[in-house]
Amino acid sequence: MAERVNSVVACRDMDTALPDIDHQRVVFDDGLTLECGQRLERLEVAYRTYGKLNAERTNAVLICHALTGDQYVAETHPVTGKPGWWEMVVGPGRPIDTERFFVICSNVIGGCMGSTGPLARRDGGEGPWGTDFPPVTVKDMVAAQRKLVGHFGIARLFAVAGGSLGGMQVLQWAANFPEMVFAAVPIATAPYHSAQNIAFNEVGRQSIFADPDWQGGRYWETGRIPARGLAVARMVAHITYLSEEALTRKFGRRVRGGQAMTAFADLFEVESYLRHQGSTFVGRFDANAYLTITRATDYFDLAEEFGGDLAAAFRGSRTRFCLISFTSDWLYPTAESRNIARALNGAAANVSFVEIASDKGHDAFLLDEPDFHRALRGFLAGCAEHAGLA
Amino acid sequence: MAERVNSVVACRDMDTALPDIDHQRVVFDDGLTLECGQRLERLEVAYRTYGKLNAERTNAVLICHALTGDQYVAETHPVTGKPGWWEMVVGPGRPIDTERFFVICSNVIGGCMGSTGPLARRDGGEGPWGTDFPPVTVKDMVAAQRKLVGHFGIARLFAVAGGSLGGMQVLQWAANFPEMVFAAVPIATAPYHSAQNIAFNEVGRQSIFADPDWQGGRYWETGRIPARGLAVARMVAHITYLSEEALTRKFGRRVRGGQAMTAFADLFEVESYLRHQGSTFVGRFDANAYLTITRATDYFDLAEEFGGDLAAAFRGSRTRFCLISFTSDWLYPTAESRNIARALNGAAANVSFVEIASDKGHDAFLLDEPDFHRALRGFLAGCAEHAGLA
Repeated sequence: MAERVNSVVACRDMDTALPDIDHQRVVFDDGLTLECGQRLERLEVAYRTYGKLNAERTNAVLICHALTGDQYVAETHPVTGKPGWWEMVVGPGRPIDTERFFVICSNVIGGCMGSTGPLARRDGGEGPWGTDFPPVTVKDMVAAQRKLVGHFGIARLFAVAGGSLGGMQVLQWAANFPEMVFAAVPIATAPYHSAQNIAFNEVGRQSIFADPDWQGGRYWETGRIPARGLAVARMVAHITYLSEEALTRKFGRRVRGGQAMTAFADLFEVESYLRHQGSTFVGRFDANAYLTITRATDYFDLAEEFGGDLAAAFRGSRTRFCLISFTSDWLYPTAESRNIARALNGAAANVSFVEIASDKGHDAFLLDEPDFHRALRGFLAGCAEHAGLA
Repeated sequence: MAERVNSVVACRDMDTALPDIDHQRVVFDDGLTLECGQRLERLEVAYRTYGKLNAERTNAVLICHALTGDQYVAETHPVTGKPGWWEMVVGPGRPIDTERFFVICSNVIGGCMGSTGPLARRDGGEGPWGTDFPPVTVKDMVAAQRKLVGHFGIARLFAVAGGSLGGMQVLQWAANFPEMVFAAVPIATAPYHSAQNIAFNEVGRQSIFADPDWQGGRYWETGRIPARGLAVARMVAHITYLSEEALTRKFGRRVRGGQAMTAFADLFEVESYLRHQGSTFVGRFDANAYLTITRATDYFDLAEEFGGDLAAAFRGSRTRFCLISFTSDWLYPTAESRNIARALNGAAANVSFVEIASDKGHDAFLLDEPDFHRALRGFLAGCAEHAGLA
């Protein structure tokens, strides 16, 4: 008789949602008025920097992180103990060379690594914001970063770079503060969220809502977090980050050693991998932050802010753009970068566009892709010359 | 202040999993030995027929249904009250013309519309099988259909046709019972489940497992079904049935009338649509059957049965094949049908292959696609001539 194991994602029952870490941060007591009209009376922005700001304050590179990324770009992550998410790109001698540039990365507002978000204490109230945290947008995230940049006394960023949701922030920076962005590198991104993008996000949100441990978003009251719902949300998102080719190359139809035909155990290696992705994610991310940030990506439609004309977002811009996409990215496919390139051309902007041949899917921007790294390094070197950086 | 509605999939709390319907069925007291080695002592196959079997019993067309389809092909569905799932294809004067052909469709074993499956009473025990129902395969599904065809005294089917999982059954029929299949029409299908296919199925299963109302599969004991988990499973699957183009055309980024910026309400039309798909599904499908049948599709790898050589599955076959795929189907893309065509060519089989231009995605085989319907009608007409059917 076939073995019948009802194998489910193993999620720890954690006492607190996330470990309490003293993130480096700056507090803005003048707060921030959000696009939705609500006001954060107190704004905290958690950040990390790498390298040194030069005397002229002209060598700063702002890095914008993706949906589940954070400010720990190029150092060991304080929660997971793993390397920073972009150590291949950022560091001494790396494409974004910290011996040359002063690199800043801040946790997006709405996030869960120290910046104001659903985990933060609510304005004038007790306990965390939870789902009462106001809806935030990519524009709000950029507005918070703008304050951080001002805090450093930086009038113009040498470059703003980021992939995925990070790339949306790059576009928003270039559109709202063109005079502050010498060079912009939007990577593996899109000028708006498509119906399919929204649909996948919605599945993730519904999975969290469906978990009784979500408790209407007030899970801190019992200490039981919606670990299973969040894990399933991560699993479905993770599929969209990989290409079919990458999944086939990594796992194919391989089964785990010596298993008999089972209905529900994790028979196939790809299942174990996904379950692992789901269960580790819940140890480092907050469910309400996931709801908030996925919503921010859904709202994103840069053209809408400019009367439906994406080119108008960049008209008169002197920023140098380098768009980068990956052939096997089906979440934000090359066609979306091409739309951005078309708009930039329509605005007579300075734009180069590199499509990198890769079978790694959307995640390619986080992985070892020498052609991508070469393109990024070359573009920044050229821009540094134009900017008169030694 | 922005409206804050925590809108979740509305699922009815149903007393029983599915309405108790007296499905037309045949009982095989000699049972069925399954591929996993377990034996069903008693096999029930629920089915529907349309048209008349001719005196020579040579005009039968077996239709194989997809994952969540059933035997109600061309009549009002007894649970939903909606038209049959293939009324555009099957009926008087339709491409599968019931004035000419005797059409049979049976509920797959492992299903929940009357054939033996997790909802059925367990052999020699009390109560339903639930998750103790043995794992079944596409080959097992076909073996059950084979018994039904024998029950009708039919020695050779004029044709076997089906899309998606139905197409896998068609391939299995042609491989295991070539002498019984004059013509085979595998539509929008694949010769095996890819890592990405398995991954999406696994997300759906984990979503069901994560629902506490699943109760280890014994939800009949409380009468509370895992409606939310099953709804989320349906939502993610539904995205894979549609193309990105179809979602954009149908919904784009349209928001529901006059909504302010909300974080969690179903702001975008595509969200309402998905939530509706999820919540209606749970009224007509059994969660354990969903687990069982998705697993059957994951197991499917026809070449494996023939020493890794797909061509060997069809060597010596005299069946006439017509493969049909759709350009925008990314669940079982044209490349998979091409793999099948290559194997059939390698077996010197009689094969035609039609790729239909459609932006409707995988679901195109269920929708109004005149080119598809013309191709199917033409192929069957040609085969009928060869078969000497008047």
